[in-house]
Amino acid sequence: MSTELEPFSFAKRIPTTPSIGSTTVTKPDHIHLSFGFAAPHLFPIELLSYAAAEAVTQQGRKALQYSGAPGPGKVLAWIQNRSKLNDIHVDTDQILVTYGSTQGIDLTTRILVEPGDHVWVEAPSFFSALQAFRVAEATITSFPIDENGVRVDLIEEALIDARSNGKRIPKFLYTMPTYHNPGGVTLSIPRRKQLVRLAREYNFFILEDDAYSELNFSGKRYPSLYSLFPERVIYLNTFSKIIAPGLRLGWLIADKSILTKARLLNLGGSIGVFTQEIVAKLLDEFPFQPHIESLIAHYRRQSDVMADAIRTDFGDHVTFHQPEGGFYIWLRFQDHVNTTEFLQDAADRGVSFVDGRSFYVNAEAEGHSYLRLCFSYVSEDQIVRGVQKLADAYFAYLSKTMSST
Amino acid sequence: MSTELEPFSFAKRIPTTPSIGSTTVTKPDHIHLSFGFAAPHLFPIELLSYAAAEAVTQQGRKALQYSGAPGPGKVLAWIQNRSKLNDIHVDTDQILVTYGSTQGIDLTTRILVEPGDHVWVEAPSFFSALQAFRVAEATITSFPIDENGVRVDLIEEALIDARSNGKRIPKFLYTMPTYHNPGGVTLSIPRRKQLVRLAREYNFFILEDDAYSELNFSGKRYPSLYSLFPERVIYLNTFSKIIAPGLRLGWLIADKSILTKARLLNLGGSIGVFTQEIVAKLLDEFPFQPHIESLIAHYRRQSDVMADAIRTDFGDHVTFHQPEGGFYIWLRFQDHVNTTEFLQDAADRGVSFVDGRSFYVNAEAEGHSYLRLCFSYVSEDQIVRGVQKLADAYFAYLSKTMSST
Repeated sequence: MSTELEPFSFAKRIPTTPSIGSTTVTKPDHIHLSFGFAAPHLFPIELLSYAAAEAVTQQGRKALQYSGAPGPGKVLAWIQNRSKLNDIHVDTDQILVTYGSTQGIDLTTRILVEPGDHVWVEAPSFFSALQAFRVAEATITSFPIDENGVRVDLIEEALIDARSNGKRIPKFLYTMPTYHNPGGVTLSIPRRKQLVRLAREYNFFILEDDAYSELNFSGKRYPSLYSLFPERVIYLNTFSKIIAPGLRLGWLIADKSILTKARLLNLGGSIGVFTQEIVAKLLDEFPFQPHIESLIAHYRRQSDVMADAIRTDFGDHVTFHQPEGGFYIWLRFQDHVNTTEFLQDAADRGVSFVDGRSFYVNAEAEGHSYLRLCFSYVSEDQIVRGVQKLADAYFAYLSKTMSST
Repeated sequence: MSTELEPFSFAKRIPTTPSIGSTTVTKPDHIHLSFGFAAPHLFPIELLSYAAAEAVTQQGRKALQYSGAPGPGKVLAWIQNRSKLNDIHVDTDQILVTYGSTQGIDLTTRILVEPGDHVWVEAPSFFSALQAFRVAEATITSFPIDENGVRVDLIEEALIDARSNGKRIPKFLYTMPTYHNPGGVTLSIPRRKQLVRLAREYNFFILEDDAYSELNFSGKRYPSLYSLFPERVIYLNTFSKIIAPGLRLGWLIADKSILTKARLLNLGGSIGVFTQEIVAKLLDEFPFQPHIESLIAHYRRQSDVMADAIRTDFGDHVTFHQPEGGFYIWLRFQDHVNTTEFLQDAADRGVSFVDGRSFYVNAEAEGHSYLRLCFSYVSEDQIVRGVQKLADAYFAYLSKTMSST
């Protein structure tokens, strides 16, 4: 029976390259400035433990069946209510609970994109999203960001050019308008208005990834793109940053035509019924607003500590935009610097970061002079020491490259 | 801003028809012989409640991060160990934990199928699987089952015909060889050997959906198809039937080339980390074998009660194969009977079933003289009363159609 098998022809749309991301390091004292993770000590562990036990005991037989109506109903109602803070007013049948916002990206892509269709993104963008678009065989075009978010003027130019020259209009634009990952920037209100005007005029969807909007350091509020144009914006959010990522629970808000298709792609399966019951119980018992405020206070302070450390250790060797919210600081070096080239030395010195090119459509040619630091997962002390180690790696790299030229 | 929007061109591969399934009925005394659900009173509620609280308390910060290594590791190790009972001997990196076996079907389809590729299925088959294949724009061909499972002789004929006449060989065959849903039948050992021989000779994959194999009433064991041909069988199983469906946790076992692609499609997301930690804790504490034995004893008795009730109430109006395991009895009426035509009357009388055509590729033309009953979710008393009501609906339908002809 051990005759040799012929090779098998897999679906062409699945690439064979592994996904890019952070380096894997296992030393216990390693400082992970690469991880875009929430701070574990801020998870509401005691309450979740209680909620888990209670939900199983009280709602157990329903929770553990395919569709425990009360729990999921409660989570939907909570999402519906909380969304009003973002000026999103929807029926619960416009909300789909998803396995994290990543599933929302995947579903949207599968609903909107045929192979060869165009998807427009920001440069830089979220690597898992880029991977979803590649798997769908989309043609991906990217538009740069600046300190006010994506350059909507360049998007408009491209649309005018497409219309004049018979080129393709994108099926959708994927954007993280508020506290961008990795850019840390926020799309200005005039640009938000201009972007939805373009979506209306040229008839494309906007996929608004709003994972970080609750983590608002400045108090300044921005209207969600969804609130400006509900017919053509698909809105994604998640419990990952505000409760805990391990729950793998997010949500998608969109027009009912999208929801119908998304449910069909889910093949009739309910999403994380058991987890939903636990989250429902947690949200019932939870002083949510004080929790959010403590998250904000913590992450704001971390952001300040990291920004100070960068200024101290790098001086005018880097520029960055101090974020109004979220998890990230995006460092820009001079154009000739290639951050990938000191990734390994930094790891050897005990600090990890994600090199800039990982966030670009064309990783070979773009983003080499940037890197992403995340201040959410580590302690203040680790931030200070991590940035110092990073600076050591950078300056060692710099003197080496300068001496060799 | 309320100008009319142009219509939008969605991806063509997403159908606009809703999924088919059971009728929705909300009367509290309604008897659901349609639901293919596990019996809620057999869920290990107390232990799950304890495991949930303990897992969160002990492993909480890890469990709630993206990747809690110990928990998922434990679940993988449990699956690896338990699989040996099915003669499946694999490394843990050949096991992917999924959101139920439905996600396994979806991932496999996306990995193997280009639009227009051929997928072969059993007639009848699982409707969510058929939906996944339709969404992937596969060309679906079905092969009948009899009391020994799918007619492998007809599959061989079709393969010979395909090779001789330049027709397409399927990318994969989707099969539920053990305690088929809805057929209740089990693929015989000679047919299992013949089927894997064909897969080897013609170089196609087999997607083996093994959701029910633990629920073995007869004690007779069948080798999994995976154990006969690990290179070209993708094996699916789930905790849905043996712990609880609401966990939405299943697994896929396959060659590493498949696993690599499946992980890529998951976009780097860990699957239900939190739920995995709880299940790991449960499995740690759980007298699993006695639990399985009590499930088997219960479902075996339910199956007997239903079979007796059918014989009493339907006499020679129906034929069926009494299952050696699983959840289902598949009733065959005379060819001129259309079970869809008494679905509503039965619902009005207080009993639901799934009409046969819902399990067929061509629901307009096939399966009309069959229906599926599920004995797992209801009590013995409900089985007896439900089958009686069903017989009332059937005989009322019969006298109406006979008098009108």
